[in-house]
Amino acid sequence: MTTQQLTQQIRIKKSFLCIGLDVDLTKIPQHLLELEDPIFEFNKAIIDATHDLCISYKPNTAFYEAYGIKGWQSLQKTINYINEKYPEIFTIADAKRGDIGNTSTMYAKAFFQDLNFDSVTVAPYMGKDSVEPFLAFNDKHTIMLALTSNEGAFDFQTLQTNGTRGEAELSGAKELYKQVLETSKTWKNAQNLMYVVGATKAEYFTEIRKIVPDSFLLVPGVGAQGGSLSEVCKYGMNTNIGLLINSSRGIIYASNGTDFAEKAREEALKMQQEMQQILK
Amino acid sequence: MTTQQLTQQIRIKKSFLCIGLDVDLTKIPQHLLELEDPIFEFNKAIIDATHDLCISYKPNTAFYEAYGIKGWQSLQKTINYINEKYPEIFTIADAKRGDIGNTSTMYAKAFFQDLNFDSVTVAPYMGKDSVEPFLAFNDKHTIMLALTSNEGAFDFQTLQTNGTRGEAELSGAKELYKQVLETSKTWKNAQNLMYVVGATKAEYFTEIRKIVPDSFLLVPGVGAQGGSLSEVCKYGMNTNIGLLINSSRGIIYASNGTDFAEKAREEALKMQQEMQQILK
Repeated sequence: MTTQQLTQQIRIKKSFLCIGLDVDLTKIPQHLLELEDPIFEFNKAIIDATHDLCISYKPNTAFYEAYGIKGWQSLQKTINYINEKYPEIFTIADAKRGDIGNTSTMYAKAFFQDLNFDSVTVAPYMGKDSVEPFLAFNDKHTIMLALTSNEGAFDFQTLQTNGTRGEAELSGAKELYKQVLETSKTWKNAQNLMYVVGATKAEYFTEIRKIVPDSFLLVPGVGAQGGSLSEVCKYGMNTNIGLLINSSRGIIYASNGTDFAEKAREEALKMQQEMQQILK
Repeated sequence: MTTQQLTQQIRIKKSFLCIGLDVDLTKIPQHLLELEDPIFEFNKAIIDATHDLCISYKPNTAFYEAYGIKGWQSLQKTINYINEKYPEIFTIADAKRGDIGNTSTMYAKAFFQDLNFDSVTVAPYMGKDSVEPFLAFNDKHTIMLALTSNEGAFDFQTLQTNGTRGEAELSGAKELYKQVLETSKTWKNAQNLMYVVGATKAEYFTEIRKIVPDSFLLVPGVGAQGGSLSEVCKYGMNTNIGLLINSSRGIIYASNGTDFAEKAREEALKMQQEMQQILK
């Protein structure tokens, strides 16, 4: 899926909602546990109930790996289900991978080829040759962590760098996440990059848009983590919309009774309607 | 396994060699491809041929994930085989994970509980609450990226930070990887931390040992990537040895004929003998 097609989907559905499929067996309705694959059954019900209200689903791989081979099977069935039944959906493997070149290529194959996701999240710490192998997949998107929504974001991401690296002069003093954004724009196939920017830091969006005016931003932290949708849109939206707003727990765990899918739809609908207003 | 036991194993085996099990189906002997699980059969043969010469095995998860569910099964069989047959071996899941707190807990469960590795590698970009969930497993070890062995290490890891973060004054200007090391020492259960430091940067070990004198360092980049074993030991070794030197391709792909395990043993033996000399 191209970014043009993504923007088109947003305009058709009047929504830029991404639903995080972070499925924890201790939190899903207990009647599902009797089924052979509770995680997949849960996802299937959530997807069927919400697919017209969102443009993207984002399973976080941690929640699948925690259940070993069975979990990996649930992930595979989930992505296959979405790709077959709802091919207009933009799929994100929230995996936060990154390794030396050859090894990142294997991760890219895992998520882009074997599982056939449209995009994958990656971590920037290992630099250019850890991310470019993902960018080499031209019909896919690589979503790099820039400024995350957690408390620990302030440990390193907002450190002031003084604009030098060894004897090299860079383009002036700035916070690490800004340097990450700027440097990444020079990488090969940088047009395939999107970025993770947490909604809990809405005031940062103005600065971020100066560096990456055209890129899509994946925005966690609205809702459960306290970020404001209207603030994020005010400072972060561009002419192609350029935002994917993620909500996980607030939607998928709206109820843990037999009405869980229905209640998830109600929560997704609230967000879609808010987005529809903003898009006007 | 405690670090004391690890040091004891090093003294018994006169080796601090870690063998990276980065198994690529295009590089292993072709006769193995006829078997039901070529990756596991390859690992089993390598492990049986080298277990007395090394103290650790380190499968990189990317190489398993690239083969989907089958790959994850090979990983599970490999770790089970090591844990059952060679319980004295220190096992490392080279996964480079990291996510917001709750999610990192799921990753920790995946590698520490479901797969039962002794340790896992993690990325620092998301800070304290992305790493502490791993550290909470008291009988396990968390190996955090500090200064990696690839070219991209110089993109961000060696950026000069000026010692401030917003209005907070830190302990002076330093390169990012040093700040990462320093900050991580303040985290809860920091005694369970080890660090990845690439051998291609041997001159950095002196500085690193000033910050983390007692920690074990996992050192990739000796051999194929050009790092020198004697240089690394000269500047990086401490009284508990404190080094795990990794070699992957140089050992496991020493031959791609039917003699691959034998040739792998020869390469591992060369490294073990060099280490034995150094330990004297």
